[in-house]
Amino acid sequence: MDAVRCAVFGLGRLGHQHAINLATRVPGAKLVAVLDSVPELAEKTARELGVQRWSTEPDELLAATDIDAIFVVTPTSTHATLAKKVAESGKALFLEKPVSLDLEEAAATVHAVEASGILCQLGFMRRFDPAYKAAKAQIAAGAIGEPLYFKGISRDPQAPPETYVAASGGIFADQSIHDYDIARFMMEREVTSVSAVGSVLYSKEVARYNDVDQALSYLRFEGGAAGDIEAYRNAFYGYDIRAEILGTEGTLVVSGLRQQNVTLLSNRGSNYEILPGFIERFKEAYVDELIAFIQCVQQGERPSVGVRDGYQALAIATAAKRSYQEKREVAVPGLNEVNVS
Amino acid sequence: MDAVRCAVFGLGRLGHQHAINLATRVPGAKLVAVLDSVPELAEKTARELGVQRWSTEPDELLAATDIDAIFVVTPTSTHATLAKKVAESGKALFLEKPVSLDLEEAAATVHAVEASGILCQLGFMRRFDPAYKAAKAQIAAGAIGEPLYFKGISRDPQAPPETYVAASGGIFADQSIHDYDIARFMMEREVTSVSAVGSVLYSKEVARYNDVDQALSYLRFEGGAAGDIEAYRNAFYGYDIRAEILGTEGTLVVSGLRQQNVTLLSNRGSNYEILPGFIERFKEAYVDELIAFIQCVQQGERPSVGVRDGYQALAIATAAKRSYQEKREVAVPGLNEVNVS
Amino acid sequence: MDAVRCAVFGLGRLGHQHAINLATRVPGAKLVAVLDSVPELAEKTARELGVQRWSTEPDELLAATDIDAIFVVTPTSTHATLAKKVAESGKALFLEKPVSLDLEEAAATVHAVEASGILCQLGFMRRFDPAYKAAKAQIAAGAIGEPLYFKGISRDPQAPPETYVAASGGIFADQSIHDYDIARFMMEREVTSVSAVGSVLYSKEVARYNDVDQALSYLRFEGGAAGDIEAYRNAFYGYDIRAEILGTEGTLVVSGLRQQNVTLLSNRGSNYEILPGFIERFKEAYVDELIAFIQCVQQGERPSVGVRDGYQALAIATAAKRSYQEKREVAVPGLNEVNVS
Amino acid sequence: MDAVRCAVFGLGRLGHQHAINLATRVPGAKLVAVLDSVPELAEKTARELGVQRWSTEPDELLAATDIDAIFVVTPTSTHATLAKKVAESGKALFLEKPVSLDLEEAAATVHAVEASGILCQLGFMRRFDPAYKAAKAQIAAGAIGEPLYFKGISRDPQAPPETYVAASGGIFADQSIHDYDIARFMMEREVTSVSAVGSVLYSKEVARYNDVDQALSYLRFEGGAAGDIEAYRNAFYGYDIRAEILGTEGTLVVSGLRQQNVTLLSNRGSNYEILPGFIERFKEAYVDELIAFIQCVQQGERPSVGVRDGYQALAIATAAKRSYQEKREVAVPGLNEVNVS
Repeated sequence: MDAVRCAVFGLGRLGHQHAINLATRVPGAKLVAVLDSVPELAEKTARELGVQRWSTEPDELLAATDIDAIFVVTPTSTHATLAKKVAESGKALFLEKPVSLDLEEAAATVHAVEASGILCQLGFMRRFDPAYKAAKAQIAAGAIGEPLYFKGISRDPQAPPETYVAASGGIFADQSIHDYDIARFMMEREVTSVSAVGSVLYSKEVARYNDVDQALSYLRFEGGAAGDIEAYRNAFYGYDIRAEILGTEGTLVVSGLRQQNVTLLSNRGSNYEILPGFIERFKEAYVDELIAFIQCVQQGERPSVGVRDGYQALAIATAAKRSYQEKREVAVPGLNEVNVS
Repeated sequence: MDAVRCAVFGLGRLGHQHAINLATRVPGAKLVAVLDSVPELAEKTARELGVQRWSTEPDELLAATDIDAIFVVTPTSTHATLAKKVAESGKALFLEKPVSLDLEEAAATVHAVEASGILCQLGFMRRFDPAYKAAKAQIAAGAIGEPLYFKGISRDPQAPPETYVAASGGIFADQSIHDYDIARFMMEREVTSVSAVGSVLYSKEVARYNDVDQALSYLRFEGGAAGDIEAYRNAFYGYDIRAEILGTEGTLVVSGLRQQNVTLLSNRGSNYEILPGFIERFKEAYVDELIAFIQCVQQGERPSVGVRDGYQALAIATAAKRSYQEKREVAVPGLNEVNVS
Repeated sequence: MDAVRCAVFGLGRLGHQHAINLATRVPGAKLVAVLDSVPELAEKTARELGVQRWSTEPDELLAATDIDAIFVVTPTSTHATLAKKVAESGKALFLEKPVSLDLEEAAATVHAVEASGILCQLGFMRRFDPAYKAAKAQIAAGAIGEPLYFKGISRDPQAPPETYVAASGGIFADQSIHDYDIARFMMEREVTSVSAVGSVLYSKEVARYNDVDQALSYLRFEGGAAGDIEAYRNAFYGYDIRAEILGTEGTLVVSGLRQQNVTLLSNRGSNYEILPGFIERFKEAYVDELIAFIQCVQQGERPSVGVRDGYQALAIATAAKRSYQEKREVAVPGLNEVNVS
Repeated sequence: MDAVRCAVFGLGRLGHQHAINLATRVPGAKLVAVLDSVPELAEKTARELGVQRWSTEPDELLAATDIDAIFVVTPTSTHATLAKKVAESGKALFLEKPVSLDLEEAAATVHAVEASGILCQLGFMRRFDPAYKAAKAQIAAGAIGEPLYFKGISRDPQAPPETYVAASGGIFADQSIHDYDIARFMMEREVTSVSAVGSVLYSKEVARYNDVDQALSYLRFEGGAAGDIEAYRNAFYGYDIRAEILGTEGTLVVSGLRQQNVTLLSNRGSNYEILPGFIERFKEAYVDELIAFIQCVQQGERPSVGVRDGYQALAIATAAKRSYQEKREVAVPGLNEVNVS
């Protein structure tokens, strides 16, 4: 089977990781080009990974006939525009979350991508994490009976810089969105409404952006299930991602705080190191989502997580933000309830 | 030092446990009488524990000059009335939570007890649990810097019978109240407002009492800290009580799911048994709170947890219930803000 | 039922703990006398625990008609002599391990105690530890099929003082003896031979007594099962007692390193405190073994762990010491194979 | 940098895994040929991995000028012969353990490989496991002071087939050899003598080969340190590999039983799945050892684990086997103490 010729757009921390993974760890993938608006970064990465072509111009690579798939890892504000361009180019699209920070734009992107018929996978890497996958498999096998409640916790080791916060869309769209997606994935139901609250506990500066550094969302699902999502920017101790799915016959707990299977016993107690960040926590998931994508491209299959999932997670985040601002429960609009101008 | 002559009022599951503990495990305590409205139960318990006196009439024992301390473990609806009677008798009072289901009555009870000058300890046993105590000591030692967020989870193995639910005052006053108290204890600040949501996930019958079997309370504390409390009636897998206190320099996690330090490894995985209920989970705390109370009585010291703590926890629970009903954030009234008729 | 009138002989750390437990935590026990060769210690303990009688003369208390049970917690060298005297007195005997450091003397003690018909329980407290008991119950319930291998680890936080080592009988009789007993208890078979090795890893001074501070015993059981026992004096990090029982269908792991159910997460990792010593690790077992003994006395039942168990554990320890010295596998002599002069 | 052109000899379970890893997960490696004595297997694997060349004749591939490195994953009996041939060919050699089952042959192989000057890495993958590496780094950083004792446990989920046992060289050379190597690695000292015992606990058929299915080795290291290694063939519950390194200031525990970070809580307790076998347990290590080897080849560096390490581990295993047979402590011969005919 022919290798899938890949181009990575955006070479920040995650884009760089995707590029490395495509170059060395994803069978069937061939990294043929990298792109960044900073030419020095693009050139350096190309050299480092032994890639011939680098660019600062998306259109140049989108027009290339010897590129099969585009990986959009650029800043969020460019996601929708690039997604539409990739759709027009007919290439396969791997799109980082969120689709957009604007719900109408996200809906329009869904329509554009679906109309084009291109293959599109969203970068919700948690779905490919071995622990989440195993939990999902256990639910499917009936281990907990009917799922009734989803509990998610996402704590970052420290708040991002103020410039990031300013452009992030807020804690709900930026941090909790991964939990909204995984909650839908685990419960296999749509979220119908959200009640969200939050506080500025430590990063006083986020108040300038009407944002908080700690948030709690209460979700109601179709059919009467519920859930809650905690987000915190300043856990200090490390990167802490957890989930629980409570069912009629059991509860599944997904954890993963430990960095290595090594414990130090001393007169200061029993101690192990904690995972420092998302790259380390989801190391395997970041590879496996790419492997899955390449397989879909090679075999013409539909990705298990697509552009509509991107819309749904954003719709929950948007409702959560409004709930927080208006101090009331807010319904989550379905795709067909959003006006696309 | 003379033994403290004790009488236990109410011989349900917890009252019976208190009676056993006083009879056998609490140095300085002498169980001299037991009381229950069901004479057979009172008589049987007296015989079983080698206690001479049993009764169905509180007034009879309250008038006895050879009884020093009364342990009120009767149904909640009788707590306030009995507390006032004990206050009038001048005896020491160990009072189970909640003080009342009515905030005005609770405030009046605080006034009556405090005016009488009797020694009074509330039955918030978690404060005497070795794990919570150790966490508190670590906070005091500066291990987590300034506490910023409290997270509490209380899951019961299965919902109580419908008759219990009907008289319980609802999930906030009945189940979350322990977390409200321990949150105040750990954060060393008062809660100023609550936003509460909830769902009927499994026990459909609780809807008849405008109650839920799953609830989430978001707490705001003086000085900008916050917290959330999850309550669930139907965890099925066991009794699951947890707490986390997030601070500026670290986070403390209080857990305790494991029944014994025994793990079975087999081709079905690694398995340990889970604690079945509150009596087992707080076995040591139930003894230690009585030991502390008896010491206070013997040494004329003020208990570390008193009737005002009972009021505060109920005030949070009452605000939470209203928040749930009115779908808005509700302020927690201070003791002096409550009209006592 | 009448209270059992108890006298504790020997008020070192463990004797003092037994005295406190009998005075305050053991239903049916009444501590009526304490004894120590140091009169000040006996008097002080009596005052502290509200006990009327104290003595330095065993014979005085053994002759008392108002004492029902003697708890021998004196130095090992006096165990056998005192046990025989208690046997002659006809009182019930709770005897700390080891019965003796001399196998012939131990055998003679067994004969004397059994001939007298007194009730006698050995102080192998691990058998009453909730974790070991739960493991035993699981084995009885068939959870691991047929037990094939026992693995025991006993690590002390630091080596005892040199004077203690000199009189201890060596690491096998002093430290591993608890594991030999619990191995027999778990496997429900006798040990037929031992191969033991050891090293002086840290406490160089023990070499003067032909002792080691680290030892490993390989046990062969009747019927083909086996096991190994590790002992170490200088773990530094805390008191670490573990066991594993490997069977044809599963393996049970008994652990218990954690001091409290509290974990501190910080930028130094995930940390919990470790149990510091045997008093803390076996706190519950030290009470429960006394409760069981008092119940046996009150109900005329035979203790589950008797003087023969004391002989068997010592026989294994004696064989282990010889194996270590002679660098060969040594058979464990049965009681009837020992000449009693 | 040019890709290293690799050929894998031997396509059993591990050889197949190496071939997959070289083809897809090891940057800088190019799998150009596979070899197996079964032509169908060689051809099938070549097709599956898109490799042009396959063979049944080592000499053919050893003579090829367009192959840079040979991975010997054939049956143990062929290791020494093939290693010498690779040495003659001048290619780089990745050699699976053990070097040989015969100590003289192993010594001769060391001499031949070293005389040839080729680059040679031994397949002790545990050294590349993230947990062992992290433990080693902590020792180097002084976390436990001076290492005094090494404890290793290796339990296989079930005994290999009888034909495998017959050719395996016995439990010491086949199973414990990994622990002997990792013990040397962690302690950074040579083992000077071994005392080994063992039993046939379950797999009665191994007795026919003078082998056991359970073994315990006691190691003495240069400078007075010690250690023990447990091996068991029939753990049934899964693949259980552990290590502890006790030092003067702390103890490191390396574990890794859990298959996924998922726990199921139900009325049957708290449960997680256990790793089934070595491929899953050392998944990352099997990739990382190849990455390290390829880097050494590309940069002309000496591998961190070489052919002498293969000799040393075998020398311990050989001494252990003799110790078991002769029931006495046996010295471990250094390389220069072995006659090479």
